Amino acid sequence: MRNIRMTIGYDGTDYHGFQVQPGVPSIQAALIEAIAAITGETAAVHGSGRTDAGVHARAQVVNFVTSSRLPADRWCQALNARLPNDIVVWKAEEAPLTFHARKSSKRKTYCYTINGNRYPDPLNRRTEFHHPGSLDVSAMREAIRHLEGEHDFTSFCSVRAASESKVRTVYEAQLTQTAVEGMESATGVGRLRLFFTGNGFLYNMVRIMAGTLLAVGEGKLHAAEIPRILQARDRALAGPTAKPYGLSLWSVEYEL
Amino acid sequence: MRNIRMTIGYDGTDYHGFQVQPGVPSIQAALIEAIAAITGETAAVHGSGRTDAGVHARAQVVNFVTSSRLPADRWCQALNARLPNDIVVWKAEEAPLTFHARKSSKRKTYCYTINGNRYPDPLNRRTEFHHPGSLDVSAMREAIRHLEGEHDFTSFCSVRAASESKVRTVYEAQLTQTAVEGMESATGVGRLRLFFTGNGFLYNMVRIMAGTLLAVGEGKLHAAEIPRILQARDRALAGPTAKPYGLSLWSVEYEL
Repeated sequence: MRNIRMTIGYDGTDYHGFQVQPGVPSIQAALIEAIAAITGETAAVHGSGRTDAGVHARAQVVNFVTSSRLPADRWCQALNARLPNDIVVWKAEEAPLTFHARKSSKRKTYCYTINGNRYPDPLNRRTEFHHPGSLDVSAMREAIRHLEGEHDFTSFCSVRAASESKVRTVYEAQLTQTAVEGMESATGVGRLRLFFTGNGFLYNMVRIMAGTLLAVGEGKLHAAEIPRILQARDRALAGPTAKPYGLSLWSVEYEL
Repeated sequence: MRNIRMTIGYDGTDYHGFQVQPGVPSIQAALIEAIAAITGETAAVHGSGRTDAGVHARAQVVNFVTSSRLPADRWCQALNARLPNDIVVWKAEEAPLTFHARKSSKRKTYCYTINGNRYPDPLNRRTEFHHPGSLDVSAMREAIRHLEGEHDFTSFCSVRAASESKVRTVYEAQLTQTAVEGMESATGVGRLRLFFTGNGFLYNMVRIMAGTLLAVGEGKLHAAEIPRILQARDRALAGPTAKPYGLSLWSVEYEL
């Protein structure tokens, strides 16, 4: 048996998330089907994490164990020929049998993209949240720093989150601001990207952090309130859950 | 009567080009319909130029004359509320009655985007041409310089081009190379962008220049052959017409 580790990207718009669910399209089901077409086997495909319905990925990592003898460098082409064009396998390599895309992962980075111009960018409308109202970007910069570090993120996860411990470490939280290219003269703050790198993220955690930072940008919350919201461990105090389509799983890191 | 000048962006994927054609969707028809819904008038909407079926725009400029008294700064919101979400008006201002989006334009910039990685980027598949084979980027850089300047571009336009004179000036032709973000470790040359700024472009001219540069990248043509191809005034000597969906009208400049 061999363990194949792959890096995949997808446009999540037309999927009900990563995980297999009966009767609806999912990334995992599409992968299982394409692998079965090649190997005749129904493989268990493990992802580094589930992405919600509508969430995208630049570099999701998955693995599966197979008896197929297809060389590692042939999997990309073989699978891409069978996958729909909104899912792409762009790296495949053989991994030790002990490798597990979720259990072995050390750090993950997510990116939440906000188009803060007055009018949306039609060419990126599937992958960014459009916020036409004014945003105080320096307040958002101040707020995002309070999310870095080891915290109990109970206030920043869905009340439906199953994890026992809500303590996670956000190693890095950054806001970048760039013009929407080709629309440099458009009115507004341009494109904001919120990058979060952590050892793990609770259910809806990135979307709630993004929604809370948007509330800070709108002046509905003060940046200085973030520490108190964290301490309160009360989901009701943080901002709303931001729309899924602005979110992308950016990268997953493993120990060598 | 007032002359309204607008800057619009669109995802051209689902349109048969800018220009009205009977029985098929076009950008111009969508604009005329949305303007009519506001004013009750069927306006003549002039674009800075036609874009082909499947070609996009970041900053296409259009104008129309209307008797409506709607202030210039209200047109964006009013039209965007009525337009499909793949067309966005992001700037509107009042212009002198003598202003004409095409006749008054001085310089236009187009961008042709090539993803030169082995596997495509699912999140940008509508707006870039995927070229999985190897490309000699330095040969392409050398070739693109030969396209700058005033030339007879007969070899670089469709034999169906109607213009009498095929002489045009390309003020600037540039190739940029960046990583496909989030996929930095993917195999290949990354994302190449070909920017062409000129006083006007003949039918299919940018797509033929892009196709010719791709032929140079593939080693099918030498960069040094470009001057000879220009001089020959023979469409058969240049490369193929590149796919429309990699092309975007980037900006249009006018004299102040």
